[in-house]
Amino acid sequence: MPRIAYFGPTGTFTEMALAHLEDTGIFDGPVERVSAASPPAALQLLRDGDVDGAVVPIESSVEGSVPPTMDALSIGPRLQIVAETELDVAFTVVVRPGTTADQVRTVAAYPVAAAQVQQWIAEKLPQAEIVAASSNAGAAEDVAAGKADAGVSTALAGERLGLDALAEGVADFAGARTRFVLLTRPAKTPPRTGHDRTAVILQLPNEPGSLVRAMTEFATRGIDLTRIESRPTRREYGTYFFHLDCVGHIDDALVAEALKALHRFAQVRFLGSWAAVADNGVPPVSDEADAQWLDALRRGEEDR
Amino acid sequence: MPRIAYFGPTGTFTEMALAHLEDTGIFDGPVERVSAASPPAALQLLRDGDVDGAVVPIESSVEGSVPPTMDALSIGPRLQIVAETELDVAFTVVVRPGTTADQVRTVAAYPVAAAQVQQWIAEKLPQAEIVAASSNAGAAEDVAAGKADAGVSTALAGERLGLDALAEGVADFAGARTRFVLLTRPAKTPPRTGHDRTAVILQLPNEPGSLVRAMTEFATRGIDLTRIESRPTRREYGTYFFHLDCVGHIDDALVAEALKALHRFAQVRFLGSWAAVADNGVPPVSDEADAQWLDALRRGEEDR
Amino acid sequence: MPRIAYFGPTGTFTEMALAHLEDTGIFDGPVERVSAASPPAALQLLRDGDVDGAVVPIESSVEGSVPPTMDALSIGPRLQIVAETELDVAFTVVVRPGTTADQVRTVAAYPVAAAQVQQWIAEKLPQAEIVAASSNAGAAEDVAAGKADAGVSTALAGERLGLDALAEGVADFAGARTRFVLLTRPAKTPPRTGHDRTAVILQLPNEPGSLVRAMTEFATRGIDLTRIESRPTRREYGTYFFHLDCVGHIDDALVAEALKALHRFAQVRFLGSWAAVADNGVPPVSDEADAQWLDALRRGEEDR
Amino acid sequence: MPRIAYFGPTGTFTEMALAHLEDTGIFDGPVERVSAASPPAALQLLRDGDVDGAVVPIESSVEGSVPPTMDALSIGPRLQIVAETELDVAFTVVVRPGTTADQVRTVAAYPVAAAQVQQWIAEKLPQAEIVAASSNAGAAEDVAAGKADAGVSTALAGERLGLDALAEGVADFAGARTRFVLLTRPAKTPPRTGHDRTAVILQLPNEPGSLVRAMTEFATRGIDLTRIESRPTRREYGTYFFHLDCVGHIDDALVAEALKALHRFAQVRFLGSWAAVADNGVPPVSDEADAQWLDALRRGEEDR
Repeated sequence: MPRIAYFGPTGTFTEMALAHLEDTGIFDGPVERVSAASPPAALQLLRDGDVDGAVVPIESSVEGSVPPTMDALSIGPRLQIVAETELDVAFTVVVRPGTTADQVRTVAAYPVAAAQVQQWIAEKLPQAEIVAASSNAGAAEDVAAGKADAGVSTALAGERLGLDALAEGVADFAGARTRFVLLTRPAKTPPRTGHDRTAVILQLPNEPGSLVRAMTEFATRGIDLTRIESRPTRREYGTYFFHLDCVGHIDDALVAEALKALHRFAQVRFLGSWAAVADNGVPPVSDEADAQWLDALRRGEEDR
Repeated sequence: MPRIAYFGPTGTFTEMALAHLEDTGIFDGPVERVSAASPPAALQLLRDGDVDGAVVPIESSVEGSVPPTMDALSIGPRLQIVAETELDVAFTVVVRPGTTADQVRTVAAYPVAAAQVQQWIAEKLPQAEIVAASSNAGAAEDVAAGKADAGVSTALAGERLGLDALAEGVADFAGARTRFVLLTRPAKTPPRTGHDRTAVILQLPNEPGSLVRAMTEFATRGIDLTRIESRPTRREYGTYFFHLDCVGHIDDALVAEALKALHRFAQVRFLGSWAAVADNGVPPVSDEADAQWLDALRRGEEDR
Repeated sequence: MPRIAYFGPTGTFTEMALAHLEDTGIFDGPVERVSAASPPAALQLLRDGDVDGAVVPIESSVEGSVPPTMDALSIGPRLQIVAETELDVAFTVVVRPGTTADQVRTVAAYPVAAAQVQQWIAEKLPQAEIVAASSNAGAAEDVAAGKADAGVSTALAGERLGLDALAEGVADFAGARTRFVLLTRPAKTPPRTGHDRTAVILQLPNEPGSLVRAMTEFATRGIDLTRIESRPTRREYGTYFFHLDCVGHIDDALVAEALKALHRFAQVRFLGSWAAVADNGVPPVSDEADAQWLDALRRGEEDR
Repeated sequence: MPRIAYFGPTGTFTEMALAHLEDTGIFDGPVERVSAASPPAALQLLRDGDVDGAVVPIESSVEGSVPPTMDALSIGPRLQIVAETELDVAFTVVVRPGTTADQVRTVAAYPVAAAQVQQWIAEKLPQAEIVAASSNAGAAEDVAAGKADAGVSTALAGERLGLDALAEGVADFAGARTRFVLLTRPAKTPPRTGHDRTAVILQLPNEPGSLVRAMTEFATRGIDLTRIESRPTRREYGTYFFHLDCVGHIDDALVAEALKALHRFAQVRFLGSWAAVADNGVPPVSDEADAQWLDALRRGEEDR
């Protein structure tokens, strides 16, 4: 039974994402879920060989990239993304049984969550003060332990702790979604599906224009870049890791060309090619016809 | 006396940054410091006319951009950056007088700070658990209130609350620095100094290659891009604000050209041109000689 | 009365082009036409101060650029194009009075003309051999002198020598046109008309990609390049002069920007901006609105 | 015995180029030389199957590209360049035995040759008039036939007609060279040698920037473009064939990529890859290492 780490504790959105991935059948059977205190901790378990996979959040439609995940992907041995899933992220506000809204004076919330529900709190719990929790599930734990009157958490965490839901589907921004990825140690890339995503981390030579050059390697091949993020390397001030996601698969000829082209002048960490859960842009055109044309030329058959 | 908001409470690094700016003489006299609960709150006070300026952190050499600041700059009426300062960011671990290291069981820390000192805590306070604080100064308040045994905070905050320093200059990453900016409502751009920085926020047409095009407008003019960040717009999934910083001033002819070129196809929010505190790359070349050459051509005087 | 050199002798298409230009009123009165033996000879008369202007062919829709004109523009003191005109180029086949088609055994033709009528000769004068003439008007002179039975020439040349037209409007390629330009010594550029053409000659640094860079300076500004030609410099093997024509005028802000940008890394010889006689592509967009936007930003008035 | 057409008549530089190619052993034995009246005529013989190869001049270091050759390559069935050679082009001025310089009143010269020796004639034969000949060898024939006193020709042509050399090595521009190519009907490309040249003719979509795009396909792959020429299509005014030469071979992975990339948006006529006789720039880098890296990634072996 494979052991899969996730950003816990139990009841987090990440655990729900893992459950989703289990439902897709990707694991060929049941898995043992292993809670980790943070995304970096989950990746460390994977690198240490303590688990066989790890599920972490990577991007929120409201908050953008998840910095701890990105930084942990850049440093240490290479890991590989093999699958993804997306969840609607709306919070459940949990209370101890019997607590009513007008009794709430303190609301425990993970700061990222607090940013997404502050308008709701200002309207519905105007007399309450927000206190920091260590995670979304931790906010429920704080309520169960009596440290706060209410918690911005998940339905799952509330249930497990016997708490009541004061409100469900709480979110200042409608349609908020978070994307989670399943990582393994480097492995054979999953087969091309035709609606794939490829991710790399680049370290570029310290020359003006090198980022434009890198992006142009995608643009000239008609490959859609869907995400670009920079993160400090923490080694030298003003140096960055660039995280680039594109539409397509390493087995798409044009994506392969672009990766090779990047490799000629940059340090490229390949994070994987995997099936995208949602429509993520126009896949690169096939280069089959062009390759056949070229081979005909080489043989001297072409006639135009 | 101008009123200047800052990301407080009293004792934060941001208040130190404001003090630094006061020392530079930029305010022509004393100012009234107004504490705000968050960077967005500080900017809101400015937009509401309650203050005349606002100081907020914008980028850390360890943590990268400060998302709440960036998001608050994108949404709402335009504000303008007029100055910047940088601080070495090393923390002071504060305790109530008499507390020794081996007595510490809980350490209050703002999550961003926790990420920068976790190795130090693991080594020096291995028996301690980290609990979330609402800011760096708030960590000291938690110690003073008895909610935690130690706090990852600033020297200033500790002093003001009568706490002792268990350790100073605490940082997992040597040389960590944070950059802070002073904003006002839109105003005449400060004069060009020759070592300036210019920042814009772009909303690009939803076409492949439009980001490359935007960056190329800088590259072809030899203008050094020093930062590029994307942030979700929160309005439509998969749409972004792009934050670009470049070397140079709106009164550098080539920067002016680049801004006009962006304006031809993108929505451009100009965040200002101001003096950079540190060497921030090679400024754009002067276009004086080229302009004179062109005028000679127009008059028919040129002779080559 | 201005003296204007043209590629003669009398009766050439170039003299017709000069007559056309006279009809436009550009000379403010009658001119003295000065025949020159070749395009370079016409330009030499202008450089020597012997004439005030020169008319030479520059491009044919069938034969492409006129190399002697291009080379003479590159070497020696700069000259400036101030106007252009275009002629339909169809030949008149001239014979001595009384000569019939079946009597023609030799046809005098300037080699450039021969290339444009060889199909016609093969069909209509199959028994004739082509002999080289020194110009189109020279072919008529050869006929008048009895050196050839027929000549591929112009109607004007035939008339002046008392020859008959065996055929008129002779051309293998329908719609052949040639463009002629009027040059002066460097002078104030004629005013922008909104349908202008600008020409430069570039000497580029001997680096891979420098031509792409030069062309990109036009492309990124949305300026239409209508012609690009390379000619050996004749000084060093493998080095070239690049002749570029674009749509627009040096007083179009974007064209001015592009010229200044070229001047930053290349040797630029400005050949002039002048009114195009035919639709020559989409003129560059005005940068008026962008410039006003930028000035509002500088003053701090902009509000988006 | 293969039949090879050349731009004749006997004694032309092109025949010398054919002799050079024979000396290289490329034909595996003797060939039958077939004179053609012009470069297009030589290519027509090849297309008609009357000969097995054709040698034509393609570029002069003084005069640039040879338009009749270029135009004949663009129109009609595709032909393929399989080899090249270069000759120093200096002329021999031939006279009938006994003629001295001061007796020369007329000099027969092919117009292209006349352009390259006019300074010499002005100095050494100031009293002489230039009359047009149909080729360099034709100039010698004109002298032998008494139509001119002297001829700008080749040593070979003079010898064959029993003429004397009044002067040898005549050239206004020192170091003038002409490049000649050997063409066949489409055939298997000659093997890569590491110092190769590849040529294509492009028809580009009628959109601004499409030529820049085509050139960028070479530039982004570090491929050196050594020649770019435009020629009118003669079908529609303002439309062009673009002739591009680059360093490298169709079997260089990066050249293959560039050709496929062009094929995605342009009509590409491949003129061949063949060994360059002289140093023609830096060949494209090998993509071997990049391809191995990519394959390791696909298998999941890569470890960085």
